Amino acid sequence: MIQKELIDDLKLKWDRLQQAMRQINADGCLLAVDVNLYYTTGRIYSGYFYLPAEGAPWFFVKRPNGLDGDQVEYIRKPEQMAELFAAHGLKMPEKLLLEADELTYNEYIRLQTIFHPKETANATAVIRGLRRIKTPHEIEMFRLSAERHARTYAEIPECFRPGMTDLEFQYEIEKRMRKNGSIGLFRAFGANMDIFMGSILAGENAETPSPFDFALGGGGIDASCPLGANRTVLREGTAVMVDMAGNYTAYMTDMTRVFSVGWLTDLAYRAHQTALSIQNEIERVARPGTPCADLYNIAARITEEQGLSPYFMGTKQQAKFVGHGIGIQINELPVLTPRSKEVLEPNMVFALEPKYVIPGVGAVGIENSFLVTENGLEKITHFPENIIPLDK
Amino acid sequence: MIQKELIDDLKLKWDRLQQAMRQINADGCLLAVDVNLYYTTGRIYSGYFYLPAEGAPWFFVKRPNGLDGDQVEYIRKPEQMAELFAAHGLKMPEKLLLEADELTYNEYIRLQTIFHPKETANATAVIRGLRRIKTPHEIEMFRLSAERHARTYAEIPECFRPGMTDLEFQYEIEKRMRKNGSIGLFRAFGANMDIFMGSILAGENAETPSPFDFALGGGGIDASCPLGANRTVLREGTAVMVDMAGNYTAYMTDMTRVFSVGWLTDLAYRAHQTALSIQNEIERVARPGTPCADLYNIAARITEEQGLSPYFMGTKQQAKFVGHGIGIQINELPVLTPRSKEVLEPNMVFALEPKYVIPGVGAVGIENSFLVTENGLEKITHFPENIIPLDK
Repeated sequence: MIQKELIDDLKLKWDRLQQAMRQINADGCLLAVDVNLYYTTGRIYSGYFYLPAEGAPWFFVKRPNGLDGDQVEYIRKPEQMAELFAAHGLKMPEKLLLEADELTYNEYIRLQTIFHPKETANATAVIRGLRRIKTPHEIEMFRLSAERHARTYAEIPECFRPGMTDLEFQYEIEKRMRKNGSIGLFRAFGANMDIFMGSILAGENAETPSPFDFALGGGGIDASCPLGANRTVLREGTAVMVDMAGNYTAYMTDMTRVFSVGWLTDLAYRAHQTALSIQNEIERVARPGTPCADLYNIAARITEEQGLSPYFMGTKQQAKFVGHGIGIQINELPVLTPRSKEVLEPNMVFALEPKYVIPGVGAVGIENSFLVTENGLEKITHFPENIIPLDK
Repeated sequence: MIQKELIDDLKLKWDRLQQAMRQINADGCLLAVDVNLYYTTGRIYSGYFYLPAEGAPWFFVKRPNGLDGDQVEYIRKPEQMAELFAAHGLKMPEKLLLEADELTYNEYIRLQTIFHPKETANATAVIRGLRRIKTPHEIEMFRLSAERHARTYAEIPECFRPGMTDLEFQYEIEKRMRKNGSIGLFRAFGANMDIFMGSILAGENAETPSPFDFALGGGGIDASCPLGANRTVLREGTAVMVDMAGNYTAYMTDMTRVFSVGWLTDLAYRAHQTALSIQNEIERVARPGTPCADLYNIAARITEEQGLSPYFMGTKQQAKFVGHGIGIQINELPVLTPRSKEVLEPNMVFALEPKYVIPGVGAVGIENSFLVTENGLEKITHFPENIIPLDK
């Protein structure tokens, strides 16, 4: 069931989860959702992971056939878990954690009926809380993703041909992502956050408001996926913002760079420079203990000083965050919002993305992924940060 | 809010939904999930669609900014819907349909608290029931997808280079999919069904059992996405099964073709021919009223007669269906299983996919998308069905 090289990492996660469970007097935690199974078992399977507050976990597997290991039990339906608890003399949990923000209503009710605990609490909140603080193995995965992410971005200029559309540019990049090991899937937390491989925004399309809770929008090519590139021709004077996924391992880096076709307006260059200044200032001040709200407020203050507030994080619709935790999903905790109550802690990994939308030009700004260390921030996505001309 | 060319299609869907609601004495249906919003409004937005049992629908929108139209109301949080119901003199539903198989537990409870209906019922079951029977507009979308799907498949032989891996082959195909209009996203119903752009299975990898409820498996390139291509080298004697998504409109066609590198074994060719025979026989007998279980049983019987049961729909793990409804999601109703209680009805659209896994060779067989007409089946995916040599 468990790959040998992962066992230390998984044990560390189980320990942390058991500590969190004991703090709230939970007796058991049952996980069924793909990202949480991956987090706690190193793989995705159809079935359940059960961790008691003390002792080793149980793996209840529906599919695939052929997994084995300690405390692995095959089931056809979740009701068999109750029988297996009885057969193994396992105590049924009185307070059970279930993924209340991820399981469907019917699944939750079904599991609640099977275990009939006196009390339930929200496993999603607990696990998302734990997932904020990355393990050494997870940080290693981010570094791998970052390296491959940068390798792909280095190939972006060769994707450009004069007269092409943003979408044509994008699928040339997508191919290079895959060549460099992109898994393809781009996971987000929450409903209606479907996104394909990332986002490329050029020209006026950068202003299009999005239904999604991402930093920027774009109209997309179909009403069933209204985000990103919309077949805008990459003409002279256009900024092309590339925010393609760093999904080269299960731990995704987030990195945005801006490319230009010809010269952009002075306002665009100044706004880009402002984004870099925000990043510098945040790199200078942020350390464990810094309130996440401060990071947003630094970005808003510098933006205000430059008179750029109307362009900050959109025009027709402005995102109210300037960064977010990353991991197995692109929108983990913490979120860098003005109302955040969180503070930075060592081994958080987050994306910082001050961006401006310049009407008629496109989007400019920067995004990098940062690891919070004992001393401050360590940038893990390395790639030139200037606006890179495509037609040179 | 609503695009003009869609209004007749949407009105037809609202009428059908209201009929279904009246049959179960529901007063209102509230939808929030992306695919159901797309089905009933023609777009994806962040917010809710409310249809009373009589009268016109309401659109409660959080994002994007700038939508307008009749009965469109902007909200910041769902609790405002109760205030808006009061302000507009709208009757609160006594029996409310909520998406019990799609909403998270917490969202469901929140909506239930807001509307506090005397009774709730499962909107997911109702809508999936309706979505089985496609409208003329939906059928038109399938035809568009099918045409582009075939256009991409015609470009598959040019993707092949001797010595390449299944993954290299796949991302060449992915690029051509995008060039031909693929939206990218590949939507499935149910948890833990994440798949990226489709599946390519070659050689031994075709035997690898999958955690997912798809027809076949494959190991994938990462434990976080354990499906499909796994960097198998496409060497002489390998069958390469291409089952890439037909996601060229929101209505996806499903089509599988088999390619070969060099000559395959006699068993592989015979199994492929058997799959074609199954398809022929099902095309001959199926019509409105035919039980879906019969279609599975025909496939199983012909397979048995040929002594191919050990290879049918997998070896180490065998899928217990031979086809499935398609639409906005790849796994809609009906499902062609031996236990199905459903019968074919006009304007159902389904994929039929008899497949065999031949150890050491790969997967062979066929998959096409069919429309159920008054008289029988109409195949909508047209592309040569023989095993196509890649190295000619």
